[in-house]
Amino acid sequence: MTELQLVDWIRKQGTGIGDDCAILPFGKVELLVTTDMFLEDIHFQASEDAVSLGHRALARGLSDIAAMSGKPRWYFVSLALAEWSKPAWVKRFYQGMRRLGDKHGAELAGGDLSHTGKVAADIMVIGEAPRSKALRRSTARVGDGIWVSGVLGGQQAKPEPRVELGLALRGKATACMDLSDGLSIDLHRLCKESAVAAVIDRPLPVAPGATLDEALNRGEDYELLFTSAARREFRPFRGLPLTRIGTIVEGRAGAMTLFGTALKPGGYDHFAR
Amino acid sequence: MTELQLVDWIRKQGTGIGDDCAILPFGKVELLVTTDMFLEDIHFQASEDAVSLGHRALARGLSDIAAMSGKPRWYFVSLALAEWSKPAWVKRFYQGMRRLGDKHGAELAGGDLSHTGKVAADIMVIGEAPRSKALRRSTARVGDGIWVSGVLGGQQAKPEPRVELGLALRGKATACMDLSDGLSIDLHRLCKESAVAAVIDRPLPVAPGATLDEALNRGEDYELLFTSAARREFRPFRGLPLTRIGTIVEGRAGAMTLFGTALKPGGYDHFAR
Repeated sequence: MTELQLVDWIRKQGTGIGDDCAILPFGKVELLVTTDMFLEDIHFQASEDAVSLGHRALARGLSDIAAMSGKPRWYFVSLALAEWSKPAWVKRFYQGMRRLGDKHGAELAGGDLSHTGKVAADIMVIGEAPRSKALRRSTARVGDGIWVSGVLGGQQAKPEPRVELGLALRGKATACMDLSDGLSIDLHRLCKESAVAAVIDRPLPVAPGATLDEALNRGEDYELLFTSAARREFRPFRGLPLTRIGTIVEGRAGAMTLFGTALKPGGYDHFAR
Repeated sequence: MTELQLVDWIRKQGTGIGDDCAILPFGKVELLVTTDMFLEDIHFQASEDAVSLGHRALARGLSDIAAMSGKPRWYFVSLALAEWSKPAWVKRFYQGMRRLGDKHGAELAGGDLSHTGKVAADIMVIGEAPRSKALRRSTARVGDGIWVSGVLGGQQAKPEPRVELGLALRGKATACMDLSDGLSIDLHRLCKESAVAAVIDRPLPVAPGATLDEALNRGEDYELLFTSAARREFRPFRGLPLTRIGTIVEGRAGAMTLFGTALKPGGYDHFAR
């Protein structure tokens, strides 16, 4: 059994797995729940600024909620400390999370604290959306325009999760996900889940100083990738550019072309290591 | 700043921290959320049976839900794998969780998978209780009887979370928590949160083969510790003995006596290491 087969096997064990968050029907709403590990030497280095690390650790989960047009409510932090991560570091790590959480209305509600050899954090975010209103990645339709927010491939110390944009796209986008692993792999996933193909035939919004390859394959952009009816045009959202980059077409599920050439999913894959 | 001061500081950052679970008011119910790390070489050894480990990993969270008289609904598993933890091991680990979750109506709803040096799991369980009906540890009253379920100090490969008992105690117990770190420290915590003292003046239900010290101080019993009006008597619950061991009294918050002698909290403390 390969690692990818294992991931598939795990997915089949549970329900609601496949989108950025689990969708849990609950009364008149859906709870959106996402959990992300943030591990020393895998996702970050001990030498990085603790406030930025706290920000990044929480940004991932908030971005998952944003991708589904959810309103973040609470987050939980499980943190295993190492020898080097002293209380002063921990406080700054929490401060980074608090500042970002406060900005988006997410409240720290609990967690666990332990010790181990390397710092390991697991951040869980709970959000909500009205029943059946959460955006998914499996609902793109042939003919839809493909859009991205912001600029791609720039590496930011404190990427901004697009919570407010996600809420604004409710009822307007046909499918949505966040760019956490890179456009080429994330668009591939959206297309595969929606059983459609994609044509990228318009200039990408490449971040200043970034290459096309970085715009396609660098992770942690946390911009939103969404589809919408072909006729719909989007203006910048509160100063944030929204750029149409292509069109959803019929074809092999997950297939992509970039200016006429086949594009392979080449982004960061946690299991291709 | 000491580690305990750090824990206090972290608690002050968030809301709803202090009981076994976070209590999140949501519509007509309260969501109960608990998250527990389960770390190689801290909470378990690589040599242990993977099915039992999966059981134990989930039992902790289910027991937290039980302690608050909650009904478990969903759980999430973040798992960082090590070199040695091959797919066959992972499948058995999940099987251990699945069997226990199915038994108590808890559904696997998502998680995260990554890689690191040692296996690190973080298990989050979401449950629910009608608004204001969750049992807490801060509501024991002077004069209440102190009770425990089951027998204490036995070490079980597959401890059983007392979910059904917790639900049955709703409206009957005045305060409740689970015995995860040992009676002496957990009773101390309950008394401290309730601003009362405790007298243990009746025989403890010591597990066969266990010593009094183990009954007082060995963790992972996952039995329920609860208080109730003095006049109330409890019969065994579906074959599970419920034993009154003492009485809540006035006194210094958290002070305890055992047959007339001061009893210090001596159980497992994750931060006294």
